[in-house]
Amino acid sequence: MTRPAPETIGRFTIHARDGEARRGSLVTAHGEVETPIFMPVGTQGSVKSLCPQDLRDAGAQIILGNTYHLYLRPGDELLARRGGLHRFAAWDRPILTDSGGFQVFSLKEIRKISEEGVEFRSHLDGSKHFFSPEKVMAIQANIGSDIMMVLDECVAYGADREYTAKSLELTTRWARRCREAHPKGKNGQLLFGINQGGFCKDLRERSLAQLSEIDFDGMAIGGLSVGESIPEMYDMLGHITPQLPAEKPRYLMGVGTPMDILTGIEAGVDMFDCVLPTRNARNGTLFTSRGKVNIRRAEFREDDSPLDPDCSCYTCRTFSKAYLRHLHVAQELLSYRLHSLHNITFFLKLASQARAAIGQGRFAQLKARYAEVFTSGRG
Amino acid sequence: MTRPAPETIGRFTIHARDGEARRGSLVTAHGEVETPIFMPVGTQGSVKSLCPQDLRDAGAQIILGNTYHLYLRPGDELLARRGGLHRFAAWDRPILTDSGGFQVFSLKEIRKISEEGVEFRSHLDGSKHFFSPEKVMAIQANIGSDIMMVLDECVAYGADREYTAKSLELTTRWARRCREAHPKGKNGQLLFGINQGGFCKDLRERSLAQLSEIDFDGMAIGGLSVGESIPEMYDMLGHITPQLPAEKPRYLMGVGTPMDILTGIEAGVDMFDCVLPTRNARNGTLFTSRGKVNIRRAEFREDDSPLDPDCSCYTCRTFSKAYLRHLHVAQELLSYRLHSLHNITFFLKLASQARAAIGQGRFAQLKARYAEVFTSGRG
Repeated sequence: MTRPAPETIGRFTIHARDGEARRGSLVTAHGEVETPIFMPVGTQGSVKSLCPQDLRDAGAQIILGNTYHLYLRPGDELLARRGGLHRFAAWDRPILTDSGGFQVFSLKEIRKISEEGVEFRSHLDGSKHFFSPEKVMAIQANIGSDIMMVLDECVAYGADREYTAKSLELTTRWARRCREAHPKGKNGQLLFGINQGGFCKDLRERSLAQLSEIDFDGMAIGGLSVGESIPEMYDMLGHITPQLPAEKPRYLMGVGTPMDILTGIEAGVDMFDCVLPTRNARNGTLFTSRGKVNIRRAEFREDDSPLDPDCSCYTCRTFSKAYLRHLHVAQELLSYRLHSLHNITFFLKLASQARAAIGQGRFAQLKARYAEVFTSGRG
Repeated sequence: MTRPAPETIGRFTIHARDGEARRGSLVTAHGEVETPIFMPVGTQGSVKSLCPQDLRDAGAQIILGNTYHLYLRPGDELLARRGGLHRFAAWDRPILTDSGGFQVFSLKEIRKISEEGVEFRSHLDGSKHFFSPEKVMAIQANIGSDIMMVLDECVAYGADREYTAKSLELTTRWARRCREAHPKGKNGQLLFGINQGGFCKDLRERSLAQLSEIDFDGMAIGGLSVGESIPEMYDMLGHITPQLPAEKPRYLMGVGTPMDILTGIEAGVDMFDCVLPTRNARNGTLFTSRGKVNIRRAEFREDDSPLDPDCSCYTCRTFSKAYLRHLHVAQELLSYRLHSLHNITFFLKLASQARAAIGQGRFAQLKARYAEVFTSGRG
């Protein structure tokens, strides 16, 4: 890989627009990422069941790591001694790490929030730990991610207005401390802020106004896809996304289904991550150009056709639905990899098609075509 | 793949000898197999966690399928309608199927043996089934395997002499019925007999004498590695193998460790299969040129060196022991594939080195070299 010139790192260029949708590119220390992009999730330093070559074959440009998980295991200091996550996991393309905020807050009963940070117990052994904004910056520096995320509080769905308002102020203060702990440009690692504010539009705007005063390399939308209805999510997405700084990359965290992603792109989002393609691979739910396929279904017992005739992944090039169904029913380990490889390829192709469509001013047609085979329901 | 000329199918050629050890080649309907060879086990139509490309990369020339498992799921008639297991599993090299005898007899409480065959209950749903010699020939014909095995009774370790003697006679009668049900040369599928007789040398010889009257394409040794001590197994191996027809391929079923395989080769065995490399991959036991490695060990936490510097598999070319240990400890699915890929590569390289050593008359040195790092213990 050719490393980009240091002064270009963080540069986000918009190449085309189609309504609010944008086609762009972001330069990171490990190379350029074309947007809109889908980022496969490698929580523990491995995208479930896939090796780096599989990810390259699927067209992955950037993958995610998780600060919380990697801090606990194998440990960020160990990673630093190994030369960082890229070298450890043999992945030489960009890596984004989320701050661990979402994971810690989903621990619920075993964490305690204060101004200073959040105390929590490990889901592995119950041991006590403390994340401060400064600490998560240090951890992500050790991991060596190309894009770091600030520590934020992701409020639960249904949290009241008062709590949400107080929480977003805390997230802002933590965001400022993250920026101060990690001066812009340091080691070429970028830092993104995270917009919170629950499902109150004015609180989302307040969060955004506060974060806009801090010099981030990109802005994320957190706290969506946490239990709300689809219309509620899409409404907030359409409201807040266009208000995010136009000249910086926008990242919708943890979302979502193909229609969620297309709706996000339509609203102006540039980056997405979700465990959906790998999680669904496990239960045999596969995304294809004809819609979702549940490979367990008896109708595929003797189906010699490929899973998706429009897909060029190894799974679709090599095997029939009948064989994939057999592997799944027989609980063969290979099943999970073949399904993951296909689903990840599908999500990356969706992003690639979106980029092309935006460039040609026909994004609405692309979205309409997908809407014919995918409903807006949950993955 | 170029299909061999029909008249050459079944031809076994010995290219070199070194003591009792032989280097040869066997022509099957799906191509030639060099011997001695290790055959990875794909019980349910998939070698655990590996895709056909992985197997080719590892140097696999022939894989195993299991009649019992494939009959139950996906069903041999379904396989026949799909064009056989080769096409179903996208594997165009040779396949050997064992007859299911071993699996059925290990069901113990849920099977009943008679002259006609064996009645058993499925481990999947408890449904009742019947395997006769004729039935397992028909199933293997449907699977389309290149090398079929006769239905045999594999007596348990510790069975008394009387039972063992009666059992081997039954195995002989069943072997004859298998040969009659599947005339030699039919569809290019080869048929191997199976020597039984427990741990009584004279009974092994009696079995062999009876089976030698039937025209098989190769001879297997069954009923070893069933609970006996290593010296007991090696003693029987050294006694019976040289008595097997010299001009036909010899197959030691379900064995074994690297030292078991080298001991088998030394005694004149040509073919081996064992679940050891994939089963051990699951618990993190890896075979290397320096001996067995338990990747869980704390000493590998910060070990940046490859698992086996003498191995050229993807796992060893790409990752450090520290990363492999992390994946294993974190129970990442990728771990199982990387370990399997390495272990299978190791066993295939062992066979390849044995072939080369026999050709050069230095097999004893090769075995001595492995004996320095591998003990003769179980897996």
